[in-house]
Amino acid sequence: MDVGADSSGTSGPLDGLRVIEIGHFVAAPFCARLLGDLGAEVIKIEPMTGDPVRTWGKARDGRSAWWSVHGRNKRSVTIDLKSAEGRELVLDLVAKSDALVENFRPGQLGRMGLNDDLMRARNPQLVIAHISGFGQDGPDSGRSGFGAIGEAIGGLRYLTNHAAGDTDLPPVRVGVSIGDSLAGIYAALGIVSALWARDSPGGTGQGQPVDVALTEAVLSIMEGVVPEYSVFQAVREPVGARIPTTAPSSAYPTRDGKWIIIAANSAPLFDRLCDVIGQPDLPLDNRFRDNPGRVANVDALDRIIEEWSVTQDCAEVEAALNARNIPNSPIYSAADIAADAQFRARGMLRSIDDPVLGAVLHPGVVPMMPESGAGIRWPGREIGEDTGFVLTGLLDRSAAQVADLKARGIV
Amino acid sequence: MDVGADSSGTSGPLDGLRVIEIGHFVAAPFCARLLGDLGAEVIKIEPMTGDPVRTWGKARDGRSAWWSVHGRNKRSVTIDLKSAEGRELVLDLVAKSDALVENFRPGQLGRMGLNDDLMRARNPQLVIAHISGFGQDGPDSGRSGFGAIGEAIGGLRYLTNHAAGDTDLPPVRVGVSIGDSLAGIYAALGIVSALWARDSPGGTGQGQPVDVALTEAVLSIMEGVVPEYSVFQAVREPVGARIPTTAPSSAYPTRDGKWIIIAANSAPLFDRLCDVIGQPDLPLDNRFRDNPGRVANVDALDRIIEEWSVTQDCAEVEAALNARNIPNSPIYSAADIAADAQFRARGMLRSIDDPVLGAVLHPGVVPMMPESGAGIRWPGREIGEDTGFVLTGLLDRSAAQVADLKARGIV
Repeated sequence: MDVGADSSGTSGPLDGLRVIEIGHFVAAPFCARLLGDLGAEVIKIEPMTGDPVRTWGKARDGRSAWWSVHGRNKRSVTIDLKSAEGRELVLDLVAKSDALVENFRPGQLGRMGLNDDLMRARNPQLVIAHISGFGQDGPDSGRSGFGAIGEAIGGLRYLTNHAAGDTDLPPVRVGVSIGDSLAGIYAALGIVSALWARDSPGGTGQGQPVDVALTEAVLSIMEGVVPEYSVFQAVREPVGARIPTTAPSSAYPTRDGKWIIIAANSAPLFDRLCDVIGQPDLPLDNRFRDNPGRVANVDALDRIIEEWSVTQDCAEVEAALNARNIPNSPIYSAADIAADAQFRARGMLRSIDDPVLGAVLHPGVVPMMPESGAGIRWPGREIGEDTGFVLTGLLDRSAAQVADLKARGIV
Repeated sequence: MDVGADSSGTSGPLDGLRVIEIGHFVAAPFCARLLGDLGAEVIKIEPMTGDPVRTWGKARDGRSAWWSVHGRNKRSVTIDLKSAEGRELVLDLVAKSDALVENFRPGQLGRMGLNDDLMRARNPQLVIAHISGFGQDGPDSGRSGFGAIGEAIGGLRYLTNHAAGDTDLPPVRVGVSIGDSLAGIYAALGIVSALWARDSPGGTGQGQPVDVALTEAVLSIMEGVVPEYSVFQAVREPVGARIPTTAPSSAYPTRDGKWIIIAANSAPLFDRLCDVIGQPDLPLDNRFRDNPGRVANVDALDRIIEEWSVTQDCAEVEAALNARNIPNSPIYSAADIAADAQFRARGMLRSIDDPVLGAVLHPGVVPMMPESGAGIRWPGREIGEDTGFVLTGLLDRSAAQVADLKARGIV
């Protein structure tokens, strides 16, 4: 039985897969959201009190706007994992599923009686993805590792800062849990890769574990930072808004309190920019004659550009630059995103009817796969909304059995 | 023939897949690196001058340390895509491959005589992933969209800033091309999902396109930013190093010029932190009595913590906090990453012998899949190093034909 069968009929490339999420907060739920967006049936197992992330951020009646998105396309089933009967329900679900993703501390699921060996004995085809701060083994595996720590250890936080001497303020936190999100996407990639290895012609027919650490997910995107250090003993340092090797390329203020990115870092682009800002002779200035000069004198150069940009509103600066084909972009706030014509045209902003919040603007499905109908079947569910549905429809419990389990607080 | 057969014998979950990369710079090459890390055979098609990214960052003899990583596990084949014979070679390769990833501007590959219809006519099983700034269609699809623009439009850059009034400096650029990397991971997820849809029992047997925009890859990780705006008309604003809803949780300076993240934002953690900093009565201070109070008075609170942290070296602060189980983490530079025992224990720092640079520290394979032997088979190749090998071994050209193609500048 496909418990997603009452959906709007959309399907994605992962249609036919069933994924169990025993997740909380960001990383594992985000992984499961991605798989659900691509068509997998996701069953989220929650404690009776629900995943705390349900109330994170701005909320009405205990339901956050984020939850509408973070929980979308998932079934919510409440199970008391500390009870033997609850664990048996999970194992019954394991027997009928393709993958499971969890983000407890390493070993905690096992201590609750749900270790990998037990689950794989019940279903050797199961792919199990573990997400944790530091990974499932090694000397630091037991350390608590939330997003900010993963970003600090992985090296991202160090570089998210102004250049030394420009400010005494600390390195900035990227405004979202980027470490968790990266770990979630990597876990999704690992799960689908393991399923391909299992199911393709000549495949193994067996599941395998996936082990994603927040620290490592961040490390993996750090480009040349570690190899450069190892070869040249060069520690990459933060450079604020700029790109270190080329100029001008930075963010510049506008009269209406916004910022605009301008990248005029080739000779022809720089010539055109100097025209636009009314300083056509600037390319002849010895300080700015070539890219090495512009980099060496970038403080003076950026000040000249700022003196121009700040006299106009962002839309005027943008129009002037676009008229001369100079790459630029306003820095979008939430309001700018919501108004963007390109996002709208691509279905990347979808108004979804939420039962509590009314119309909620959801981001669309990434990656876009136009020949699959992946989409948003429903917004985040209430705590345990699908418990009865899944227990009777999928696990063959009777209505009376479900009522009894509920009365005893097992589900 | 598996042209990866001379590898060290490692294999990953994607062993058996062949992927063509017609990529440059960051996004498509990063996507292909991930697939290669997981065991796919990757053939990178380059112009005779090579992908410009080969020289980005610190380099010796024109070979950057980053390239050692960015190009690893790939074959390099040079082909002049502007020639009819070159395009025919690509189509012959398409006929023998599972997926192709490219990041030209939308339509450019088609204008070069390699549009999707043509490639899929040659091989209906081919999965084609397009990565671009704004996506393959819509009013902005033709705009140039490099990483900084994707991050600005997607909403990440707006939040990567200090709180209003704290500084006049512009929003910080995350020190790596995070928009490109996100797009690359999403493209890899889309490719493997399409391959599962093609190859699983009851699958379609057919390929399908994947369309990833940098702007959208960023948008997809923005958590509650857009839904909150749509429901509550609330524009999420940047908060610098802190977390907006809880305190204390920020980055604090130490005597040796480093920063340490401290998250003591629960009542028991805050009590213990006050002990550690020698101010055991602080939790009784009316300003700091509960979390709402601490958030309201966070400037004063952070100043008190800073006055303590800056009197000691980072290692001392860390030891003092660890002794009381207060979550913390030094903000790692490249040097700290390279020395980290947990990364070493997990195989996340691997010394790879590079033919030009000597020993280069590579990040390991993420996601870790311990029952597959995914690994690093070789560092980035020289331009066209595998042209002859692939043309003779895979495309059945004779040595004389290859010599002729080379003499005429086709390969």
